[in-house]
Amino acid sequence: MAAELTALQLIAQHRPTLDQALEAIRTRAYWSPHPEHPKAYGEGGSLDAAAGKAAFDALLGTRLDLGQPGTDDWTGAETSPYGIELGVTYPHADIEVLLPAMKAGQRAWRDAGPEMRAVVCLEILKRISDRTHEFAHAVMHTSGQAFMMAFQAGGPHAQDRGLEAVAYAYVEQIRTPDTAEWTKPQGKREPLALTKQFTAVPRGIALVIGCNTFPTWNGYPGLFASLATGNAVLVKPHPRAVLPLALTVQVARQVLTEAGFDPNLVALAAERPGEGIAKTLATRPEIRIIDYTGSTAFGDWLETNARQAQVCTEKAGVNTVVVESTGNYKGMLANLAFSLSLYSGQMCTTPQNLLIPRDGIRTDEGPKTFDEVVADLARSVDGLLGDDARANALLGAIVNPDVKARLEAAAGLGEVALASREIANPEFPDAVVRTPVIVKLDGAKPDDEAAYMNECFGPVSFAVAVDSAAEALQLLRRTVREKGAMTVGAYTSDEEFEQAVQEVCLEESAQLSLNLTGGVYVNQTAAFSDFHGSGGNPAANSALCDGAFVANRFRVVEVRREA
Amino acid sequence: MAAELTALQLIAQHRPTLDQALEAIRTRAYWSPHPEHPKAYGEGGSLDAAAGKAAFDALLGTRLDLGQPGTDDWTGAETSPYGIELGVTYPHADIEVLLPAMKAGQRAWRDAGPEMRAVVCLEILKRISDRTHEFAHAVMHTSGQAFMMAFQAGGPHAQDRGLEAVAYAYVEQIRTPDTAEWTKPQGKREPLALTKQFTAVPRGIALVIGCNTFPTWNGYPGLFASLATGNAVLVKPHPRAVLPLALTVQVARQVLTEAGFDPNLVALAAERPGEGIAKTLATRPEIRIIDYTGSTAFGDWLETNARQAQVCTEKAGVNTVVVESTGNYKGMLANLAFSLSLYSGQMCTTPQNLLIPRDGIRTDEGPKTFDEVVADLARSVDGLLGDDARANALLGAIVNPDVKARLEAAAGLGEVALASREIANPEFPDAVVRTPVIVKLDGAKPDDEAAYMNECFGPVSFAVAVDSAAEALQLLRRTVREKGAMTVGAYTSDEEFEQAVQEVCLEESAQLSLNLTGGVYVNQTAAFSDFHGSGGNPAANSALCDGAFVANRFRVVEVRREA
Repeated sequence: MAAELTALQLIAQHRPTLDQALEAIRTRAYWSPHPEHPKAYGEGGSLDAAAGKAAFDALLGTRLDLGQPGTDDWTGAETSPYGIELGVTYPHADIEVLLPAMKAGQRAWRDAGPEMRAVVCLEILKRISDRTHEFAHAVMHTSGQAFMMAFQAGGPHAQDRGLEAVAYAYVEQIRTPDTAEWTKPQGKREPLALTKQFTAVPRGIALVIGCNTFPTWNGYPGLFASLATGNAVLVKPHPRAVLPLALTVQVARQVLTEAGFDPNLVALAAERPGEGIAKTLATRPEIRIIDYTGSTAFGDWLETNARQAQVCTEKAGVNTVVVESTGNYKGMLANLAFSLSLYSGQMCTTPQNLLIPRDGIRTDEGPKTFDEVVADLARSVDGLLGDDARANALLGAIVNPDVKARLEAAAGLGEVALASREIANPEFPDAVVRTPVIVKLDGAKPDDEAAYMNECFGPVSFAVAVDSAAEALQLLRRTVREKGAMTVGAYTSDEEFEQAVQEVCLEESAQLSLNLTGGVYVNQTAAFSDFHGSGGNPAANSALCDGAFVANRFRVVEVRREA
Repeated sequence: MAAELTALQLIAQHRPTLDQALEAIRTRAYWSPHPEHPKAYGEGGSLDAAAGKAAFDALLGTRLDLGQPGTDDWTGAETSPYGIELGVTYPHADIEVLLPAMKAGQRAWRDAGPEMRAVVCLEILKRISDRTHEFAHAVMHTSGQAFMMAFQAGGPHAQDRGLEAVAYAYVEQIRTPDTAEWTKPQGKREPLALTKQFTAVPRGIALVIGCNTFPTWNGYPGLFASLATGNAVLVKPHPRAVLPLALTVQVARQVLTEAGFDPNLVALAAERPGEGIAKTLATRPEIRIIDYTGSTAFGDWLETNARQAQVCTEKAGVNTVVVESTGNYKGMLANLAFSLSLYSGQMCTTPQNLLIPRDGIRTDEGPKTFDEVVADLARSVDGLLGDDARANALLGAIVNPDVKARLEAAAGLGEVALASREIANPEFPDAVVRTPVIVKLDGAKPDDEAAYMNECFGPVSFAVAVDSAAEALQLLRRTVREKGAMTVGAYTSDEEFEQAVQEVCLEESAQLSLNLTGGVYVNQTAAFSDFHGSGGNPAANSALCDGAFVANRFRVVEVRREA
């Protein structure tokens, strides 16, 4: 077959980007090749906002035929958190047909080598990047993120995380040379001489189990890490967030075909409502790698049961912010208010527990009691979300009824410092938009502990009164050790306390943001620089992205012969 | 405490070696800093053969006090496969005291950083290297290896594997910089600027579960990989092979002390006869990494039950040599005869199944029938072991009664092509020395399959008649996939068949040696160049040594603050 995209073309086009990505993960300075601003995609052109919206609208109510073998039915029942029915149907796969078909192209993909696989992955990412406006709507109408966040987190930031994984995968595979000449002196006798060939070989088929809230951002690292290391990838999206990953699979299949590879190296496994296909897929012998984002219960199930696979999980955690003191009280409040509000707290990185000494804290505005800090924070959130348009742009929509139910129940857990309000969304009247609730709890009360020591995913935060800053550190340590944490925040102007909170985070493997008062928030991480999770506490068994995330997705096979 | 070994001294002394090791794992050319020849350790000096023997003799019948906290008893009952009682006793630990004590020094060890940890590890290896003659006797009288093999495999080759692990661990930890300045442009607004610190943090306490046959060679990679990545290491030796690892722990504790670190970062967990302490230790919450070499049953148990730990296992496999044709019949026979005889086949890399077409093979000496090939191989083994002195030097002693029992039972499994003989060892009359048995089996007979499809660890090989070379490949594939393999060998002068056997090994993740007819054997691998196992088939879940072997022994914790 004459490939439309030759290796030379792809390498010429993408090698400079790959090299920049490799440099970025080495220095961890800021870098991204994917523009964050909607207008950077041109205006009036085929990639602009209007074109993206039109492309999304054209998808609604259609059948997305990916041309996959073993398609035995069509399925799909996505309803946007903004109230519209997407009406898109996707292939339902007979896995007894699809899985063998996915293996057919593996040899050629393996033989293509790490560089060719990397640039094919970069071409896939480039085409996704070009369609960022279209993907933004797809992410918005599955996750409930507000448009701008869906655009950025679901577009360039997700593409960055995918590219980062490709860079790690590439460099991991070329640590061993393709060939080596090995000559061992034998004193006066002839030396022993061997020629050795080393080949990076894939483990098999990788399974990506997508999540509802960040289908692309959380899905791309595993997808691209596995594909770049030579594996075929089966994408099992969350039934409420199929479209962004289905489009991703479509682009990948197109690029693979044009580059002369088998499109079945990437496939979609959409499921019927209630089918629960993830368990079936996860324990199939062909599945050798699993990437999963979601509940602790199912993550633990995968780790326990999918023993034939390398399992990377991001599960639930209880994120803590310790407030000991601050030299910028207003900045702290503004920063925290934003963190609690962004996407209605539906991020795995959103702070849940704010640990504040019950005797209050020192600030640049004088001492503040526990009640004052909580009231001021409530006021900051109120102020931030006072304007409905701004509130809608920040909060997005509640992603599913479970989150809404948890939010409603939270008010009964303690004294409500800030009540959740309903916000109307004039564009999407059926959207469920809610401001966050802040509930006061007592760190010393066992009943309260039952609340704050469990993840309450959604726009719910607990202001937990603790006996002292030292007590806060102990509770932080216990929370991270027992429940895990994707993020830890701390505010302190005391050098000794700063050292102490750092030590807790180092000992418990938690990523720490200190004294954020400006435009960076504890719940945001940047690819190529920040690690997302640590892989060292119960919230996740791997970090995005590091060597460990990619190193076991392939193996190196050596063939040696006498020289 | 004023350290006797300063960082500057250690770096000055060992950094060049570390750099050479880093270069070696990159090029995979031959390299070793550890001399293989016994005379390279001087003659008449404190490191020579006589001094090493005297040091070993002085250990016999003594109590090896490591100064470990929580020592509640003394234990030890090693009997050399050569018949002598070692009479050495070791500390028995109260783990409720020892484990907490091992954590006390972890912070300083973590804070020392990757380079300091690497050079401390290299100093430990250097002191072990200096005592290679002494260690050789300790390995010989626990494993049953003949002296020269115990010297080389238990000395320089084991030290090489330890150093290789240190090199991988070091380079893995410095992939992320210590600090980064991250500045993100914001159009006309002030850029966002963060200062980020990255620290490699250990997982906790690592457990090394040693084996009987290669206590140092199989123990050092995990021990040094874990120590170099900041973990404390608890060494649980095989009860029949304590001494080499106890001496290793002693050296490590001495060096740690001199370098100003807590000696309890490395400790020994010797057990009472029948105590079975490995299961207890392996599931303790403090144990976060386990390295194990031994039976599949216990390896599987660890993988299933020690869920709180990263578990690296090397288990049993069924190693195959496919004989399709050869352009050097004599060389092939000589090479195979040596491979089957070395250390009485008690290597995890020794070939077990020789797959030979029942219609015979083409050779440079004309066609040979199946029976001729097997008879010629039997004659080669006989010739190699015809002289008792040479036989003793090659075979060593049978390591334990189980191996002897398996060897004796093997003769009943089929037609014996080469009977095992008893060899007298004039120096150690109680040593159990046996030549290998070769049994003919029929690849098509279900009864025979029950024999050749299971690992029969020891000096037992099966010459398996198969219908064709293509059939041999199918059986090879099935064997590797179902039973695992540490090694695969193949002999062929047919280019197409060579491609086909390579493809099977690539697809099933098995390390392949092709047409070895000289002084390199399928059961030997060289550190810095060859991978030991692949980590991709059931024989082992990790390879020695690669990025995956070290990458998950530590995590990177980030602390970020506004710049």
